[in-house]
Amino acid sequence: MSEGNKPLLNAVIKHIRENVDPISEEYHRLGDAQEDRWSYHPRQLELLEGAKQKARDAGLWNFFLPNAETGEGLSNLDYAYIAAELGKNPLASQTLNCSAPDTGNMEVLERVGTPEQKEKWLKPLLAGEIRSAFAMTEPDRASSDAKNIAMSAVLENGEWVLNGEKYYISGAGDPRCKIMIVMVKTSPDAEPFRQQSQILVPMDHPGVEILGPMHVFGHDDAPHGHMHIKFTNVRVPETNMLWGEGKGFEISQVRLGPGRIHHCMRSIGQAEKALDLMIERGLSRVAFGKKIVDLGKNMETISRAKIEIESMRLLVLKAAKAMDVLGNKEARIWVSMIKAKVPEQVCDIIDQAMQVHGATGISQWSPLSGMYAQQRTLRYADGPDEVHHHVIARHEVQTYKDSNERQDAAKQHTENRGSAGFMG
Amino acid sequence: MSEGNKPLLNAVIKHIRENVDPISEEYHRLGDAQEDRWSYHPRQLELLEGAKQKARDAGLWNFFLPNAETGEGLSNLDYAYIAAELGKNPLASQTLNCSAPDTGNMEVLERVGTPEQKEKWLKPLLAGEIRSAFAMTEPDRASSDAKNIAMSAVLENGEWVLNGEKYYISGAGDPRCKIMIVMVKTSPDAEPFRQQSQILVPMDHPGVEILGPMHVFGHDDAPHGHMHIKFTNVRVPETNMLWGEGKGFEISQVRLGPGRIHHCMRSIGQAEKALDLMIERGLSRVAFGKKIVDLGKNMETISRAKIEIESMRLLVLKAAKAMDVLGNKEARIWVSMIKAKVPEQVCDIIDQAMQVHGATGISQWSPLSGMYAQQRTLRYADGPDEVHHHVIARHEVQTYKDSNERQDAAKQHTENRGSAGFMG
Amino acid sequence: MSEGNKPLLNAVIKHIRENVDPISEEYHRLGDAQEDRWSYHPRQLELLEGAKQKARDAGLWNFFLPNAETGEGLSNLDYAYIAAELGKNPLASQTLNCSAPDTGNMEVLERVGTPEQKEKWLKPLLAGEIRSAFAMTEPDRASSDAKNIAMSAVLENGEWVLNGEKYYISGAGDPRCKIMIVMVKTSPDAEPFRQQSQILVPMDHPGVEILGPMHVFGHDDAPHGHMHIKFTNVRVPETNMLWGEGKGFEISQVRLGPGRIHHCMRSIGQAEKALDLMIERGLSRVAFGKKIVDLGKNMETISRAKIEIESMRLLVLKAAKAMDVLGNKEARIWVSMIKAKVPEQVCDIIDQAMQVHGATGISQWSPLSGMYAQQRTLRYADGPDEVHHHVIARHEVQTYKDSNERQDAAKQHTENRGSAGFMG
Amino acid sequence: MSEGNKPLLNAVIKHIRENVDPISEEYHRLGDAQEDRWSYHPRQLELLEGAKQKARDAGLWNFFLPNAETGEGLSNLDYAYIAAELGKNPLASQTLNCSAPDTGNMEVLERVGTPEQKEKWLKPLLAGEIRSAFAMTEPDRASSDAKNIAMSAVLENGEWVLNGEKYYISGAGDPRCKIMIVMVKTSPDAEPFRQQSQILVPMDHPGVEILGPMHVFGHDDAPHGHMHIKFTNVRVPETNMLWGEGKGFEISQVRLGPGRIHHCMRSIGQAEKALDLMIERGLSRVAFGKKIVDLGKNMETISRAKIEIESMRLLVLKAAKAMDVLGNKEARIWVSMIKAKVPEQVCDIIDQAMQVHGATGISQWSPLSGMYAQQRTLRYADGPDEVHHHVIARHEVQTYKDSNERQDAAKQHTENRGSAGFMG
Repeated sequence: MSEGNKPLLNAVIKHIRENVDPISEEYHRLGDAQEDRWSYHPRQLELLEGAKQKARDAGLWNFFLPNAETGEGLSNLDYAYIAAELGKNPLASQTLNCSAPDTGNMEVLERVGTPEQKEKWLKPLLAGEIRSAFAMTEPDRASSDAKNIAMSAVLENGEWVLNGEKYYISGAGDPRCKIMIVMVKTSPDAEPFRQQSQILVPMDHPGVEILGPMHVFGHDDAPHGHMHIKFTNVRVPETNMLWGEGKGFEISQVRLGPGRIHHCMRSIGQAEKALDLMIERGLSRVAFGKKIVDLGKNMETISRAKIEIESMRLLVLKAAKAMDVLGNKEARIWVSMIKAKVPEQVCDIIDQAMQVHGATGISQWSPLSGMYAQQRTLRYADGPDEVHHHVIARHEVQTYKDSNERQDAAKQHTENRGSAGFMG
Repeated sequence: MSEGNKPLLNAVIKHIRENVDPISEEYHRLGDAQEDRWSYHPRQLELLEGAKQKARDAGLWNFFLPNAETGEGLSNLDYAYIAAELGKNPLASQTLNCSAPDTGNMEVLERVGTPEQKEKWLKPLLAGEIRSAFAMTEPDRASSDAKNIAMSAVLENGEWVLNGEKYYISGAGDPRCKIMIVMVKTSPDAEPFRQQSQILVPMDHPGVEILGPMHVFGHDDAPHGHMHIKFTNVRVPETNMLWGEGKGFEISQVRLGPGRIHHCMRSIGQAEKALDLMIERGLSRVAFGKKIVDLGKNMETISRAKIEIESMRLLVLKAAKAMDVLGNKEARIWVSMIKAKVPEQVCDIIDQAMQVHGATGISQWSPLSGMYAQQRTLRYADGPDEVHHHVIARHEVQTYKDSNERQDAAKQHTENRGSAGFMG
Repeated sequence: MSEGNKPLLNAVIKHIRENVDPISEEYHRLGDAQEDRWSYHPRQLELLEGAKQKARDAGLWNFFLPNAETGEGLSNLDYAYIAAELGKNPLASQTLNCSAPDTGNMEVLERVGTPEQKEKWLKPLLAGEIRSAFAMTEPDRASSDAKNIAMSAVLENGEWVLNGEKYYISGAGDPRCKIMIVMVKTSPDAEPFRQQSQILVPMDHPGVEILGPMHVFGHDDAPHGHMHIKFTNVRVPETNMLWGEGKGFEISQVRLGPGRIHHCMRSIGQAEKALDLMIERGLSRVAFGKKIVDLGKNMETISRAKIEIESMRLLVLKAAKAMDVLGNKEARIWVSMIKAKVPEQVCDIIDQAMQVHGATGISQWSPLSGMYAQQRTLRYADGPDEVHHHVIARHEVQTYKDSNERQDAAKQHTENRGSAGFMG
Repeated sequence: MSEGNKPLLNAVIKHIRENVDPISEEYHRLGDAQEDRWSYHPRQLELLEGAKQKARDAGLWNFFLPNAETGEGLSNLDYAYIAAELGKNPLASQTLNCSAPDTGNMEVLERVGTPEQKEKWLKPLLAGEIRSAFAMTEPDRASSDAKNIAMSAVLENGEWVLNGEKYYISGAGDPRCKIMIVMVKTSPDAEPFRQQSQILVPMDHPGVEILGPMHVFGHDDAPHGHMHIKFTNVRVPETNMLWGEGKGFEISQVRLGPGRIHHCMRSIGQAEKALDLMIERGLSRVAFGKKIVDLGKNMETISRAKIEIESMRLLVLKAAKAMDVLGNKEARIWVSMIKAKVPEQVCDIIDQAMQVHGATGISQWSPLSGMYAQQRTLRYADGPDEVHHHVIARHEVQTYKDSNERQDAAKQHTENRGSAGFMG
């Protein structure tokens, strides 16, 4: 953490403690009691807006966003430290206007949006008046290979006409969500990485139909939701195109890195919470004359969880630092490393915490199964583990090929056929 | 499979194919559409009763139950083969009157019930007119140590007065469930394994309050349900005691083994289904120019799943055989081995199938997350994995101590300190 | 075990106990003291020959070999039970003339040898007068793909002229080893599986040069040895060809199955020994006031080892049975399953036993590191784990494709897109 | 790495490249050819002394040792970066006089030695004229619990009389090794952590008998060796006691931390080497028409190895930093974390590299099996993994107990029993 940003970190911590923690219980209780799961109680929004105003007053609003003119802003490393704090209360990010997927959408609009796009969508997003979504994954194709994206957009009479289906559109269930960025195939005849584009589509546009929420291990995550949406002859003006036709993948580079740092730091926060719950339960229950924590392999389980949590934290900080120093493109291997390691390992730690809890651990009486479901989805989000492993390995193999020194050392060993002095 | 029971197996297979499979789609569709999740549509019951009648007509009704007088019946090994078939359609067991926990309850009533208890509860259970539940686990104690069971029952004026809470009472949400067997502590001053008793409590008895369903990874499993029940001054006649005061653990021996065989065989069926879904998905989607099944480690994942499925099946059949040959008590190590190995490994296989599916794999579009939730609960049911591992290890260590031959062989090796001819 | 062969099993057990166990200590002590590690002390051979004669007298000699005329012999299943006994004393097999690779070589000669070949090599092998080797793996190629075998044999003037290198030729260090079967490429222009042939080469033939033993984790396994041999213009008569040119792979089918059953049964015997050593050590040492066996995860480690040992044993017996019932070809998937599972898992169990032993566990004072080295080699022998996993998975995928029933069931599930009743 | 020490790091790198790498091949070749494995060829020592002199000339000699008067020296963090370089050539440390166990012994003598002890032993050690050993582990007791150390030393007539056995005394096979520090039990009636003392014993003292080398997976590691030594009435002057009677454990605190940093950094270097060998082999062999690196799970294996290598490196650097900032005592949890994680994981990576190599990977043609053996011993050295896991978990549980904040957060969750709105 740079010295210069420590005051910001402390202000965020203070804000969460004073303005967010105190409203959380009432907020969630009201939410649980809503008859229509896809709506908010007016008092919920009142609580939220109150905390948002306090953040604005304290100068904490939109700190995630680099200065529009100078490009200056928080380093990823400093942001990582702040993200760790944000991860401790699920409401915190929203009160500071830095929730996913809004942050990514705002960054994209800031960098490649036209003045009109900024006026219409970025302004209310920055003001915290609306929410947004990002529609990428499609139900009918292996989205692990982004080139597979096939939902069609055709230019007709100055309008893009969209047809197809997207699913797992997170946040699209929120009644405040007003705008989507949709990844579509506009140019099937271009070279593979130039076929897709990103287009702005208002949520309430004719032809946009929310078919329902995707469940995750039985959770619908209402009212946020991971929605399944059908687009039928959705016609938007040509000017809703972001940056330009065929720029879909280029735009994605903008949003990938920082969001993953943020996600991974929150995942680590979840692992720490699971570890605390494991210890609490292990200390408070007795079986066969001993505290559960002292039975069998439980102490080793705690130790291994602790070691991995610290390892993951260091790796995420390193990735953040790499982004600051090397830029998003060069740092992508570090980002893939945390993306491939963190959610899988956090799932394991949560699962072990469940096991220590007995049947309560997988029930609604414990947050663990919800935490597990959430972390399990991250093993697909922004590319499944397998894709990241492949990216990392390909880079490692290439680096090996490019390094004469490494090759020399390795080859020296592989040719070492001693005669071993057999039979005289 | 014994030659003598092959006709029975074939009749069961035929029954499922002809009488159960054809009604399944309509049955589940009606269930999904019920407004009150804890009820049945009349047509659902009509379909069920139709299939039950066909099973009665075909002489397949209650085949699980040994002859009351001679004790003769299906061997566990033969039952295991039949259970594997029952596992393929979740409705099948019910149409043959051999669902859990009814089978265990009926066995217990058959063996230790009084004539009055049999008349009142066993008769309608055997006739398939009512369902039943078994209340053992308590929310406030580590139930891994069954001696911890503490819900109190006190004898007052010829009545047992029950006070306390139980949870995860499977099947207690079903409107047809009329009777519970409840494990309670009646004799706190007796020696450890003589303090608990089992008492019959009608579901609709005054003082019995269903507080709600326990969720499993967000699933409530309605209308079956895993219910949380509070008992407040529940007074039942002294004659509702099963077998006798302090016999709680002795009764449990009756029900443990065969049910676990049945459960494990069904778990293996779930693993096979997960493997099929994994292959189906892997063959039907393409990424990076290849079928998903041919990418990365997926073929090895399939192979390892297949190997473990066959290993588990053989181990379960061996355990069933051990029960037949050695009796429940001597075979308990084999039963613990399958209980400790099967659900954990099946969870892993289902998880791998999910990963091959992408985000669809954890959604309501795939049965995998529900299958996972169900198998995950089995790692606690009838004792968590850890307790079974401890039982197995303790037995193995004791067997070692008792075997002079094994000790001699091991000691011979541990004393082998060669001089190694150092320095001349 | 069939009833008919139980007397044979009992006779083998009696033979080991009475004739092999008593000579083992002296035999190994003399071997350790040999100055030339690649030789035998005369007394060693005397002891061996004595035990061999007793086996002949008891009618136990060559029981592994099917009747030359009727093809009748031990079933693989019965052989598996006997192999488990043979695995308990490393000298046992030799005293019964059923050591690897002699058994495979004798089977091959018996089935495809010419009368002259039988007279010259099979006869002394059956008599236990000489030993033999099988040369397949080559140092310069990935032998996991057997089609890679490239050591050349060219027919010149009625002689095969062999040039190239082979390594890991087990048993070729034994001074009694007189004959090798060598897999060579004779027909580079034939279709892929018709290019290789097997040729008989006497050990003492001009041009055959033993370059030295291959070490395994530092062990040279003298005087048996896994030798590295160079062939320089080795000329053998055309009649040394086995069966016919291009039949190399066909011949291999003969030897693969039963040997793997035997190997895997012995591996399981090693796992049992490791488990016994783990318990013995765990009971005999104390740390932090407790027996080591009672510390941390050690009891669970014992339980998991026990469960896997029993699972592996059942799987190997199943594979043996499959060979008996289905034939070697159809049973090859079962054989691949044991080959892929057993050595890897046995390595893990031995490693855990080492860890319980502390530093003694990896030293020469314990047999564990030698056992580990031996099992670790089996993860390559007759094809590395990865090749077997691929074979299994390919077969499973094909079986899925061929089964309409499995496909129907899987597809039904993958199309289940519920509408989930969102927003009315 | 601090700016101030970067020149030192660069000088070390230059020294290794210019003075150590060029002599390594000749040095090892001569060593392999020595008839007496426990000796050096004169030319070997000449080569070594030449490189040592160059290090002295360059001011790199003894940089590991803090200033005797000011206590100032390299931070552990800076040392960690240097250790990573030292790990790349097994001769490097010796040419800079910073080999284990000499460094630890010198540190101990520097801090607690008497002027006479320093004159006699520290001086020649600092000058690189002799080598030393540290005798702690005993064959007859579980050394995981250091309080078990039981080799006796009794004070008689101004002399300590030592009787007992020690094993795994690394470096005691080297003919240049002249002095041992021996941990003994001097005060059996003191409180548990005050019973042991450390005493200086010259290697050539009457009564000291080297029984032979302990092998590690068949390797004797000559001429360094891990020796088994018997002490029979070894009488040394009272003044050979280090620091004072009963100070055995206190002295050990001095040596533990930095050595482990050094060891773990070298282990990571081994993992990197294994990864390079894995890639080299994977690129240079072909099977089934593909480079091995592209088959099955191999790319994912490479990725996972890479991720873990980076995670381990960061964790070791963090532990070094913790030692600098918090001191050895407070940092001990971080040191236990690297000790418990690194060697186990490095063993796995080396094993995977072996598997990619085929049978060559476990033979003397590859360094992998020797590397594996070495890393496997580290899972016992300075306490087995299990002891470190226990230390970490106990500390984590205690930290939890001490933190009201963590407890409050955890308890809040564990009491969250929602009513779930069942049945109206």
